[in-house]
Amino acid sequence: MPNAVFDPPELAKGTLRVTPIGGLGEVGRNMTTFEIDGKILIVDCGVLFPEEYQPGVDLILPDMSELKDRLDDVLGVVLTHGHEDHIGAVPYLLRMRSDIPIIGSGLTLALTEAKLKEHRIKPYSLTVKEGQTEQLGPFELEFVAVNHSIPDALAVAIKTEAGTVLATGDFKMDQLPLDGRITDLRSFARLGADGVDLFLVDSTNADVPGFTPLERSIGPVLDQVIARAPRRVIVASFSSHVHRVQQVLDAAHANGRRVALLGRSMVRNMTIAADLGYLRVPEGVLIDYKKATDIPDDKIVYMSTGSQGEPMAVLSRMANLDHAIEPGPGDTVILASSQIPGNESAIYRVIDGLTKLGATVVHKGNAKVHVSGHAAAGELLYCYNILKPKNVLPVHGEYRHLIANAKLAQDTGIAEENTFLAENGTVLDLKDGHVDVVGQLDLGFVYVDGASVGEITDADLKDRRILGEEGFISIIVVVEAQTGRVVSGPEIHARGFAEDDAVFDKVRPKIVSALAEAAGNGVRDQHALQQVVRRTVGRWVNTSYRRRPMIVPLVIEA
Amino acid sequence: MPNAVFDPPELAKGTLRVTPIGGLGEVGRNMTTFEIDGKILIVDCGVLFPEEYQPGVDLILPDMSELKDRLDDVLGVVLTHGHEDHIGAVPYLLRMRSDIPIIGSGLTLALTEAKLKEHRIKPYSLTVKEGQTEQLGPFELEFVAVNHSIPDALAVAIKTEAGTVLATGDFKMDQLPLDGRITDLRSFARLGADGVDLFLVDSTNADVPGFTPLERSIGPVLDQVIARAPRRVIVASFSSHVHRVQQVLDAAHANGRRVALLGRSMVRNMTIAADLGYLRVPEGVLIDYKKATDIPDDKIVYMSTGSQGEPMAVLSRMANLDHAIEPGPGDTVILASSQIPGNESAIYRVIDGLTKLGATVVHKGNAKVHVSGHAAAGELLYCYNILKPKNVLPVHGEYRHLIANAKLAQDTGIAEENTFLAENGTVLDLKDGHVDVVGQLDLGFVYVDGASVGEITDADLKDRRILGEEGFISIIVVVEAQTGRVVSGPEIHARGFAEDDAVFDKVRPKIVSALAEAAGNGVRDQHALQQVVRRTVGRWVNTSYRRRPMIVPLVIEA
Repeated sequence: MPNAVFDPPELAKGTLRVTPIGGLGEVGRNMTTFEIDGKILIVDCGVLFPEEYQPGVDLILPDMSELKDRLDDVLGVVLTHGHEDHIGAVPYLLRMRSDIPIIGSGLTLALTEAKLKEHRIKPYSLTVKEGQTEQLGPFELEFVAVNHSIPDALAVAIKTEAGTVLATGDFKMDQLPLDGRITDLRSFARLGADGVDLFLVDSTNADVPGFTPLERSIGPVLDQVIARAPRRVIVASFSSHVHRVQQVLDAAHANGRRVALLGRSMVRNMTIAADLGYLRVPEGVLIDYKKATDIPDDKIVYMSTGSQGEPMAVLSRMANLDHAIEPGPGDTVILASSQIPGNESAIYRVIDGLTKLGATVVHKGNAKVHVSGHAAAGELLYCYNILKPKNVLPVHGEYRHLIANAKLAQDTGIAEENTFLAENGTVLDLKDGHVDVVGQLDLGFVYVDGASVGEITDADLKDRRILGEEGFISIIVVVEAQTGRVVSGPEIHARGFAEDDAVFDKVRPKIVSALAEAAGNGVRDQHALQQVVRRTVGRWVNTSYRRRPMIVPLVIEA
Repeated sequence: MPNAVFDPPELAKGTLRVTPIGGLGEVGRNMTTFEIDGKILIVDCGVLFPEEYQPGVDLILPDMSELKDRLDDVLGVVLTHGHEDHIGAVPYLLRMRSDIPIIGSGLTLALTEAKLKEHRIKPYSLTVKEGQTEQLGPFELEFVAVNHSIPDALAVAIKTEAGTVLATGDFKMDQLPLDGRITDLRSFARLGADGVDLFLVDSTNADVPGFTPLERSIGPVLDQVIARAPRRVIVASFSSHVHRVQQVLDAAHANGRRVALLGRSMVRNMTIAADLGYLRVPEGVLIDYKKATDIPDDKIVYMSTGSQGEPMAVLSRMANLDHAIEPGPGDTVILASSQIPGNESAIYRVIDGLTKLGATVVHKGNAKVHVSGHAAAGELLYCYNILKPKNVLPVHGEYRHLIANAKLAQDTGIAEENTFLAENGTVLDLKDGHVDVVGQLDLGFVYVDGASVGEITDADLKDRRILGEEGFISIIVVVEAQTGRVVSGPEIHARGFAEDDAVFDKVRPKIVSALAEAAGNGVRDQHALQQVVRRTVGRWVNTSYRRRPMIVPLVIEA
């Protein structure tokens, strides 16, 4: 691993080709293509958020290069639910062909359409419900209710001439969800009895033993914390977590408090959720945040974004006293959220800032104010046992999650040769209940960076990492074209290294003499002279400072 | 908060002045000064490891600027234990005056001396033991055994004419430690009965409810994992955690395996620990790692560094197949360590890499293979109750930890006005059992960056962050001195932004015309012309790319 790249054969008629192009070996940018008889169905089209070694990048998209020449063959995109890692890349897909139909539940499509509106795209959309079936060319789709940390999530069964695939999307098996809408194991049982040839299953929590606790176990904790809070309460959570917000509304209401929503995405998503009936707002509870200051401190709850320590979100700005609401002694802040790996430092920075201002901070680390949205190992075992799929493809997760999930499948009796550890770009062909790996595409990262999509390369990111760690030194020298003699400079500028110009006094004569020596040896080529400067400065800075800043030499002929 | 800076008054004779200069509001660079009658005692002198917003920095030192003019008054440095955050800055202190005596336990001094040797400093040192008292000018020091995640840790009672201070250093209260050396609550009781006027107490785990589990609870887990491991076992932990390594040696020995130490600091520290008798090496268990390949795979345990995902440490290199030992199927890797906040992404990257290679990875998340080295809330309550200090200064921790610790003190009946929430540089005067905050020094971060100490500024780090996120564009234009007319260029170079030169074709004419306009308006000053270039390019890149790279203009007169 990683798998060697090899081209898949031409797809035979009547064979279903399944290619995950995002979401394997990573948590994010979930996207899988299904092709049979020349027609393509896409399931999910999400984004991945960059890690610290991808500095400056805004978003990472699935590598859709293989789709570019096949856009006319795409019959539609099924979106399993409304999280960014499943819908976030839809605008970038629709930029390539804007009339690809998008298919999903009411809430999923509403959130996707709101996102597309920001990109000025009005999509063709088809709203579906659990239990519904749709024929899309050679694909018969059946939608199955699943429970997740956003309402209205769907699994999709894809029935074709070649066999049946069930893709769970993200899911867990909360047996007492707030909306009563459980993962529909009855349908799993029926589909399993009819025969599921390939099972694409969420791996995010496959390495977590046991069972995810009930979402409703959080309600009483919120209620207690709010009941005891002497002044304002500020709750931060994910802006799409309708049921978490529901419990905050209910707890506030029970304690005679009103709720103001804070943060653009929180306001937008909850307005959508309330309009569509997913969020039940107790009469008179919501109040515009501008009017919230008129309410006594012990009668208000702010529901805000920023639970991951995002620097521009409401909660971070509050912690930095860069927001109209300035937390202080007596205020209570609840982070009703997970700590996504990589965000811990930022989250603790916010917690620390709030604590320093005098607020009491309640979070996952000291109270049961969060449960995961993904099925843990115990739940996945139920799934495998009720479904009894012929083949399993763990999806959605880092490799350790995929491997843990494959082991669970094997524990329930599925043979090792029927569990597939794939990567993004692994091509699997299904026919007559058999799955074969027939290719490995060479897929990369597509970076969204400001207005640019796919222009920033890994080389640029490497440069950014060097610049960010070490800074740079630029050296400009003007030489006489005929003789190579230095006529002006070296002019030296540095940033992120040492901005005191005097430190370079020692290296200037070295540059001049190195250039004189090169000129004496007949070197005139600009590139070669620049290399001389680079080596001279590089050696000096490494010896004197034990550092390796980027060195940017420029030799100009006058 | 942060406290307003104000100068302390001159120190009156017979008053003890306590100034924490590192370790408050942060986990690291612990250092406190004590002054009475013109003489200064220092307790601890550690380093802080940089966070991601301090890119390229190697270490952060306490700001010792106030000490620079007082070096001759320093009588000694007490080092409570041998961790980097308590001893790491000693070389930088001794660079200022190399004959400041260092005082500590046998292991603490051995580790400090090994570090000083790398800096070619041979210190004056005084080895002390628990129960021992030493008179150092106006300071009478009594050393008290405490238990921590490194052997031979000491608390120190500092008795002066002005009153008695007890500083715990880092500690916990394991009641059945491997070496039988518990935190000496009998001495705490005696000191408390005699009267402790100020208690400096470790806050690291003050917000963790309950009690830290026993270190020895890990042994049986290690034993089980090793017993079941079919091939090689690789254990990673902190290179100073003698008792963790002891348990690995014992478990390996019990399972008929030999142990090879990997990683420079692991080998160095364990050699010291074994030589001094802190590590008991079962006869014939240790083997040089070069000979370890001669041993069957199921008879070897590698004990390595890299448990925090450090990219250059052994474990990361193994995960990247950049080490002679290449993990594979059947191998078991145990991370017997914590996940220090900020390191999670790096740690999971290593776990994922190892898993992908086929190894089974056992870590804190899936087995009880780590316990903390710090007293949790329950233990701290015991401390306060047995000591009954007059005043409390929580130290060693982020603000949330200090605040949690102060609350625990108050829970045991210590008045709020006797618990001090201080920052680095807060000056506290003690006399007759009373503590007053009398000043707030303006202390900063001192960055070690390659060979430089204190030269890199926060402005440099800000530049690095911008460079690292956005890259830079440099523009060189040669103008005619008399007319301001562009005679050569603009030559544009960019790194970390877009390295395709063609993207700049659109902005070159804009630069030329902006400079022509400025020249027409009589602008000749180089700085002003550079500002014209900066604004022109900045506006273009922001409009076209929605990015803000660093723009480095240079206008040269020819």
